[in-house]
Amino acid sequence: MPELRRDPIVGRWVIIATERARRPNHFPRRPEQPEGGLCPFCPGQEDKTPREVYVAGRSPAAPANSSGWGVRVVPNRFPALMIEGDLDRQAEGIYDRMNGVGAHEVIIETPDHGRDLGELSDAEVAEVLFAFKARVLDLRNDMRFRYVLLFKNHGQAAGATMEHPHSQLIALPVTPGQVVAELEGARRHHEHRERCIFCDIVGQERKDRSRLIYENEEFVALAPWAPRSPFETWIVPKRHESNFEAEPRERIALAAAALRSTLRRIAVALGKPAYNFMVHSNPLRDAPSASYHWHLEIMPALTQVAGFEWGSGFYINPVPPEEAAEFLRKVAW
Amino acid sequence: MPELRRDPIVGRWVIIATERARRPNHFPRRPEQPEGGLCPFCPGQEDKTPREVYVAGRSPAAPANSSGWGVRVVPNRFPALMIEGDLDRQAEGIYDRMNGVGAHEVIIETPDHGRDLGELSDAEVAEVLFAFKARVLDLRNDMRFRYVLLFKNHGQAAGATMEHPHSQLIALPVTPGQVVAELEGARRHHEHRERCIFCDIVGQERKDRSRLIYENEEFVALAPWAPRSPFETWIVPKRHESNFEAEPRERIALAAAALRSTLRRIAVALGKPAYNFMVHSNPLRDAPSASYHWHLEIMPALTQVAGFEWGSGFYINPVPPEEAAEFLRKVAW
Repeated sequence: MPELRRDPIVGRWVIIATERARRPNHFPRRPEQPEGGLCPFCPGQEDKTPREVYVAGRSPAAPANSSGWGVRVVPNRFPALMIEGDLDRQAEGIYDRMNGVGAHEVIIETPDHGRDLGELSDAEVAEVLFAFKARVLDLRNDMRFRYVLLFKNHGQAAGATMEHPHSQLIALPVTPGQVVAELEGARRHHEHRERCIFCDIVGQERKDRSRLIYENEEFVALAPWAPRSPFETWIVPKRHESNFEAEPRERIALAAAALRSTLRRIAVALGKPAYNFMVHSNPLRDAPSASYHWHLEIMPALTQVAGFEWGSGFYINPVPPEEAAEFLRKVAW
Repeated sequence: MPELRRDPIVGRWVIIATERARRPNHFPRRPEQPEGGLCPFCPGQEDKTPREVYVAGRSPAAPANSSGWGVRVVPNRFPALMIEGDLDRQAEGIYDRMNGVGAHEVIIETPDHGRDLGELSDAEVAEVLFAFKARVLDLRNDMRFRYVLLFKNHGQAAGATMEHPHSQLIALPVTPGQVVAELEGARRHHEHRERCIFCDIVGQERKDRSRLIYENEEFVALAPWAPRSPFETWIVPKRHESNFEAEPRERIALAAAALRSTLRRIAVALGKPAYNFMVHSNPLRDAPSASYHWHLEIMPALTQVAGFEWGSGFYINPVPPEEAAEFLRKVAW
């Protein structure tokens, strides 16, 4: 059983995978796609994955786990966490641990092996975000979970091991450190000013426009003031909303349009780089928040991140966000 | 002039390099060592670097910037920060910025191009740490600086661009985010218990021994309870001390012995992996702290860090620290 352990100094939780028997100096990559083109995420290979937990686009008359789908969500075959079991929280002297209970699922974004998310239509990207929402609403019913981390690793340099377009979710009994830091920062801002810091950012960026990349009725894409890496881009709702899963379908469709436009700009401007994105949202068990504001963070994998940078929390970014935003604004395709 | 910008939500400072004219989608790596073996850090090439700010091992009769040295510290030719200028702190609406004023120096650890730090003698590693201390004491006199970040990138996978054994320092007008998080966590622990969390950790680890890798009279090397990556190792003084630069020579020599032994164990056990280390110490302008405790963190670069991980603050580690520690304890060389 994997274990969740808490760092006693900074409070960060990590998953320690203890289940696999192997020498500790051997680091298997997660299995790559098998040679010969039999991608388990492609239509017709549905029996190569665990049974689906969500599907969209398939005729209701067709059997489950058959082809003909548009988006398909399946449990990860090599999960970082186990879905069954109690948390069994324990102290070990000054330390805290619990069982690595959680869900780890793969959102297969399209039946088309060769088209990444930014190359789909707005309606197709919206179907992916609808799947995100449906899975969060379902997993929220499991009272062991406090957070659902939605993310995408695209390309080898961003940690992807499968080529077929997909994103992932991990449902956790704890809230990830970076989200906790944002929640606390946003709460402090709200205590002093009774305003949401993200609403303030959206307001200033829409006035200033130098870091604005894209805007529609409900969402902006912007280069943040202090980006950790070149071309870091956030998609932020203009209207205050703390929880991604609380967004109605019409607004999720507009988030999808913003996401697709931004990913396509990045692909065209930077030559289809590897990238990560992650959704930051209010934790599942918290009341809707006046201080926190959900958003999506995109990080193209353009520069090498030295372990130094994530171990120090200190980043050197060679591209000013104003230049990155101007460059992405002007992309034509 | 590079700029320091503060993220308004989590308070993280980043350096935005604005001085270089180039297209924003072009990311030059820092210049590699020139082909043909003329390493600017090798003896005889002293005129290829900026003039030295510290030297050890050279006869006092010999001229500055000549060969015959053991350790040599020079300003970085491609500094991330500029040594001259005022901080000029400014608000830009809700945002904070200041000029990217700071020092960026290279500590050339040995004249021998082919021997890494773990392959030097205890006395030679001690000379490197003496250089660290001397540079911190000197830079502390510059009242613009609040923190000196001492770190090493070894090997390409860890972000090194030069092969010749070296470490680096960056003197900053701000404290790096990860250190701030540790300072705050340690202060909370001290408020509740009137004990230093690091002293508690050393106490528990010396009793438990399952995560202990090495011990001498004054220092331990241990695998932390919740490591972010396989074989993460900390070198921690057994006696409470908040400031690295306050350590006397005899204790720094024992820190060097712990560091050399640990690096050699990692090199032998894991096949000379790339690695980073960084020194975390109390900020320069703070009074000596009863709650904070300096230490050195070593991160072998064994697994790929997805941007996802540093963007979420959520880590999956396939090697339990107890297994890593046992493996490193048993290394013979």
